[in-house]
Amino acid sequence: MALPILGYAAQSPTTALAPHQFQRRDPRPDDVVIDILYCGVCHTDIHQARNEWHGSVYPMVPGHEIIGRVSAVGAKVSKFKLGDMVGVGCMVDSCQHCAACEAGLEPYCVEGPTWTYNGTDRHDGQPTYGGYSERIVVSDKFVVSVSDKLDPKAAAPLLCAGITTWSPLRHWNIGKGSKVAVVGLGGLGHMGLKFAKAMGAEVTLFTRSPGKEAEARKLGADHVVLSTDAAQMAAVARQFDFILDTVPSQHDLNPYLNTLTLNGVLCLVGLLEAIEPPVQAAMVVLGRRSISGSAIGGIAETQEMLDFCAEHGIVSDIEMIAIQDINQAYERVLKSDVKYRFVIDMASLKQTA
Amino acid sequence: MALPILGYAAQSPTTALAPHQFQRRDPRPDDVVIDILYCGVCHTDIHQARNEWHGSVYPMVPGHEIIGRVSAVGAKVSKFKLGDMVGVGCMVDSCQHCAACEAGLEPYCVEGPTWTYNGTDRHDGQPTYGGYSERIVVSDKFVVSVSDKLDPKAAAPLLCAGITTWSPLRHWNIGKGSKVAVVGLGGLGHMGLKFAKAMGAEVTLFTRSPGKEAEARKLGADHVVLSTDAAQMAAVARQFDFILDTVPSQHDLNPYLNTLTLNGVLCLVGLLEAIEPPVQAAMVVLGRRSISGSAIGGIAETQEMLDFCAEHGIVSDIEMIAIQDINQAYERVLKSDVKYRFVIDMASLKQTA
Ligand SMILES: [Zn+2]
Ligand SMILES: [Zn+2]
Ligand SMILES: [Zn+2]
Ligand SMILES: [Zn+2]
Repeated sequence: MALPILGYAAQSPTTALAPHQFQRRDPRPDDVVIDILYCGVCHTDIHQARNEWHGSVYPMVPGHEIIGRVSAVGAKVSKFKLGDMVGVGCMVDSCQHCAACEAGLEPYCVEGPTWTYNGTDRHDGQPTYGGYSERIVVSDKFVVSVSDKLDPKAAAPLLCAGITTWSPLRHWNIGKGSKVAVVGLGGLGHMGLKFAKAMGAEVTLFTRSPGKEAEARKLGADHVVLSTDAAQMAAVARQFDFILDTVPSQHDLNPYLNTLTLNGVLCLVGLLEAIEPPVQAAMVVLGRRSISGSAIGGIAETQEMLDFCAEHGIVSDIEMIAIQDINQAYERVLKSDVKYRFVIDMASLKQTA
Repeated sequence: MALPILGYAAQSPTTALAPHQFQRRDPRPDDVVIDILYCGVCHTDIHQARNEWHGSVYPMVPGHEIIGRVSAVGAKVSKFKLGDMVGVGCMVDSCQHCAACEAGLEPYCVEGPTWTYNGTDRHDGQPTYGGYSERIVVSDKFVVSVSDKLDPKAAAPLLCAGITTWSPLRHWNIGKGSKVAVVGLGGLGHMGLKFAKAMGAEVTLFTRSPGKEAEARKLGADHVVLSTDAAQMAAVARQFDFILDTVPSQHDLNPYLNTLTLNGVLCLVGLLEAIEPPVQAAMVVLGRRSISGSAIGGIAETQEMLDFCAEHGIVSDIEMIAIQDINQAYERVLKSDVKYRFVIDMASLKQTA
């Protein structure tokens, strides 16, 4: 007997999100049932709802920046108890036995992780539905604890935007003495600034829009470089050990590569498309530089990040919305008109007829 | 009073190489004078002689895989004495004080190293001339010792093709347990196979030409994969920790990237042009893979490589030519019709009228 759930869903690539009733599985022995309080709005939600990456399955309930309270646990769950504040991110399962899974790097699972929505449960073959809903049922291995030191609303975006920027900064050992640049000031970029600064790096923001200095500095930037200004770009040639490139659309990497030191790394976290215009091989060969990328982050490191955030008082800058505002919020995300992440107050779902 | 020297030079981008008399500086206190015995023929020599990379200055005496005997030393030289067998590679000087130079990575000198030919001496402002000549004068810091355990003819290509493949294999810690693939079986590729094997890696050759198995195995390959065969490529998906890509012309990196493990690195050593067709960002993001590159190698690691070669009995596979054959040799290099490096017997220069 499955649980009946109210959520917001897209019924096709071209229909607005609207109220939708669906079912979730009865909790299995390792499952945690979470009453969702808040859910962040990620650009991925739009791509998927509109089938922009192809392979979308409808109805689709988006949402993978989920914060809520445990309302039930399966018989084998010991890590969580009723009332705990917890989070769920982009994944709800993985094979659990490949080298990537064993290394705690579930996004790189060779069989592919089970995505929180628009995925298929690997045990019962049922579609997965995301966080724009009252309740979710998730294996305890993919649930993380949220400290009561954190504002739970503002913690929601940590589950995707947060971990996606945290994981590469940690993997490439950013810390005191590092010179880091962040490209783009959106949901990912603003978390990149906060984390790189908190890790002890000297932090620069690359932006195409003048007038972001004051804001960028508040978020952790020591310097702001206007990437459209050739003189400013020349002044930072060979300066950075690491560039976190959060831009979600095609852009020229060559001017940024030129600002990397010997052995410097440019890490893509926002792009899956073709790298165009093409990179000049000389840009990597003549400085032993690397173009790399990183996908979200593992569950263990998500917990590590949340604990770090609790300790350092780091959360996302957010704008709260009701679920009824979701379609307008999507339009504003597409115009980068949000500082820096929309979070849905899921209590608003009760006002839905 | 400068030294008069006989060599072979290009007088313009379109003229064949021909005998040419020129002058070299009188030895400075830190200089070593080397009577050249052998000089390897590198693809770069052709690019430069024909001004394909622009900026060529004429007359040009190519050649940067130089082996010879010390015939004189400046007053301050203690590392070398008359009669020593020595080598000179792609560089004859660098700033000696930037971070790269201090790390022994002179190719990445922020001021740019002084190239062995088609360069400008940083002290007297005179053009540099390469190894297709009787004699060369080089600062002792850029001269390396060649063990008498090495066949000096076959050691010549180690100074460019050798160090260019050695340096990245060492930088990325290739050793026992590593799974390495080499793309391309030319002057660089054949050295890549030998070094990777000698370092203890399991080695695969990617080639577009069938029928290279036996030869590749002799050179050190454990496996040969035909990169034009989709089934063979699929069978090695996610297999390699490191790919040494020696291809000197534009080619699609995506099929090779797909064969890298999580955190795998594809390192370009043969390409300076635009990376086209474009790389799919998903190829790096979804496996935390890197596209990197490496330029030659430092002087200290060149010596380390030569000592390793002496110990392990590694040299280049070569075909000897007389300097009078150089223009035909260029045509054969362009058709990849050499196994695997031409080396000029510089004694032949005496037969030049
Ligand atoms: Zn997301
Ligand atoms: Zn797995
Ligand atoms: Zn060369
Ligand atoms: Zn230098």
